Amino acid sequence: MNNTVQQIIDALLSFDTLTLISHIRPDGDTLGSAFALCHTLRKCGKTVSVVCESEISPRYRFLSDGESNISGEPVGAIVCVDVASPDMAGEKYLNYAENADIVIDHHGTNPAFGKYNLINPDAAACGEIVLDIVKKLAPLDKITAECLYTAISTDTGCFVYGNTTANTHTSAAELINVGIDIAGLNKNLFRTKSPAAFEIERRALDSLEYFNDGKIAVMKISLDWINELSACEDDMESISSIPAQIRGVVAAATFREIKKDTYKVSVRTNGEVDGGAVCRSFGGGGHKMAAGCTLYGGYADVCKQMSEKLAKGFVK
Amino acid sequence: MNNTVQQIIDALLSFDTLTLISHIRPDGDTLGSAFALCHTLRKCGKTVSVVCESEISPRYRFLSDGESNISGEPVGAIVCVDVASPDMAGEKYLNYAENADIVIDHHGTNPAFGKYNLINPDAAACGEIVLDIVKKLAPLDKITAECLYTAISTDTGCFVYGNTTANTHTSAAELINVGIDIAGLNKNLFRTKSPAAFEIERRALDSLEYFNDGKIAVMKISLDWINELSACEDDMESISSIPAQIRGVVAAATFREIKKDTYKVSVRTNGEVDGGAVCRSFGGGGHKMAAGCTLYGGYADVCKQMSEKLAKGFVK
Repeated sequence: MNNTVQQIIDALLSFDTLTLISHIRPDGDTLGSAFALCHTLRKCGKTVSVVCESEISPRYRFLSDGESNISGEPVGAIVCVDVASPDMAGEKYLNYAENADIVIDHHGTNPAFGKYNLINPDAAACGEIVLDIVKKLAPLDKITAECLYTAISTDTGCFVYGNTTANTHTSAAELINVGIDIAGLNKNLFRTKSPAAFEIERRALDSLEYFNDGKIAVMKISLDWINELSACEDDMESISSIPAQIRGVVAAATFREIKKDTYKVSVRTNGEVDGGAVCRSFGGGGHKMAAGCTLYGGYADVCKQMSEKLAKGFVK
Repeated sequence: MNNTVQQIIDALLSFDTLTLISHIRPDGDTLGSAFALCHTLRKCGKTVSVVCESEISPRYRFLSDGESNISGEPVGAIVCVDVASPDMAGEKYLNYAENADIVIDHHGTNPAFGKYNLINPDAAACGEIVLDIVKKLAPLDKITAECLYTAISTDTGCFVYGNTTANTHTSAAELINVGIDIAGLNKNLFRTKSPAAFEIERRALDSLEYFNDGKIAVMKISLDWINELSACEDDMESISSIPAQIRGVVAAATFREIKKDTYKVSVRTNGEVDGGAVCRSFGGGGHKMAAGCTLYGGYADVCKQMSEKLAKGFVK
């Protein structure tokens, strides 16, 4: 069951020591939300740390404070932030998450696995929910505002995705009014690519092929390139959204080579093809417009399998 | 001199027939602002048209209404919208702009060339100023909100540029509350590329070269490609911002071939090099972080000239 913002505030304040858990493969929302809450609870006199099982990508390291031992052992009350289910806390923190005191999240699929839960699927980002909490705990300061701006802007692709609401924008306005440097933040979050990311993107675009009169686009990311360029996850994050932006393309698939004859496939569609259904037919999953699966075989072969299935998806 | 919003409203309402002028090479702000004002003034019983000397790119055609003769002869009162100076109205409308009744703009350089002027350089987009006007004239409707959302979002790169303010976001919230489909709008405005644009980008990225240990990046857009792909202005709009996004790149130059041995150069910097000063030394102009000039000679030669000048710009 869901609690009110005030009940969550009362629950948070009832503990002296708290550990905030961010989800594995952390994004700007889980980290920005957790560090904003952490910083604010410290101002209320609490002993607080943020933990996360995975490494934080360079882009988001500025969010972390000097005091949290990010891979440390949780102590005190457990608060899961932007963690859709206990397994999203990762193996190391699974047990803690399963016994969470408080869960704050915006995923509609969250089973409300805490003793106290604040789950609002209408929020584009968990940061919007955390903003409602922290501003009632202490006056907003720059560090908190930077964390929450990062949370909200990254989960909406800088206010471009369809999840963006009027509340997303009024939240951003509130945070900007604190006096944060959004030009600098946005440059780091949205307008900076590593040379490796740029090079991977360039090679992937070079591999792009069209099928079905330009309605289907496929491209690949070769394992050799990843190794040669020492590319990290963050370097490949946004590439799969590119071919779906080409006018006329109904469905796009990006084949990332994981090992020889094994491809992690990201499918993006404009909604005319159900990418989730196509990926489920290959043992994967996802939504209509964004889905994924793993395919086995040579590139030409897996490419043919996927493009044929996608073509069938809209020939009806 | 500058007038108040109320004085501009009184001036607008004092005319029965008005022609709104958008600037040449029109962007989303000048068109969105003009059509929003046009639509609202018609609801107030006025006879209104929007004119613009240049063709409207496909991306923005949805903004235009069925009633305005976009290349028609102005009648009635002249209102310049987002027109920084009379010459920005284009040759055909220069004389009308020079005798403008009302000027509504957000360019700090605007000399306030109308009889009535509302110029607010703090506004990220002219659309923010027009929103203040139209909501006092009539309740906001979907068409007006779509026009103004387009104006505001395009002039801020979808809220990513440093000109974005708290007011930009509260304006967006106000427009979204009218019930517009921002997912669809953003898809068209920010997440759609023509196949030609995609192909030009792919070839330009392939041409990218680094100088000075990766601090300078240069790339070209060949006239042959533009002709072969029938690429239009809109297809090349955002390409020049790409190399400046590579981590470590301090200054980037994109060389667009206009005719044999003639290159229009777009310079983008992170602020460590004064791109405007470099371009002025070549007879061009612009700001520190975004500037341009025209260079003459073979590609290797103009590339060398520019990269040496850029390198001198930060070796001090």
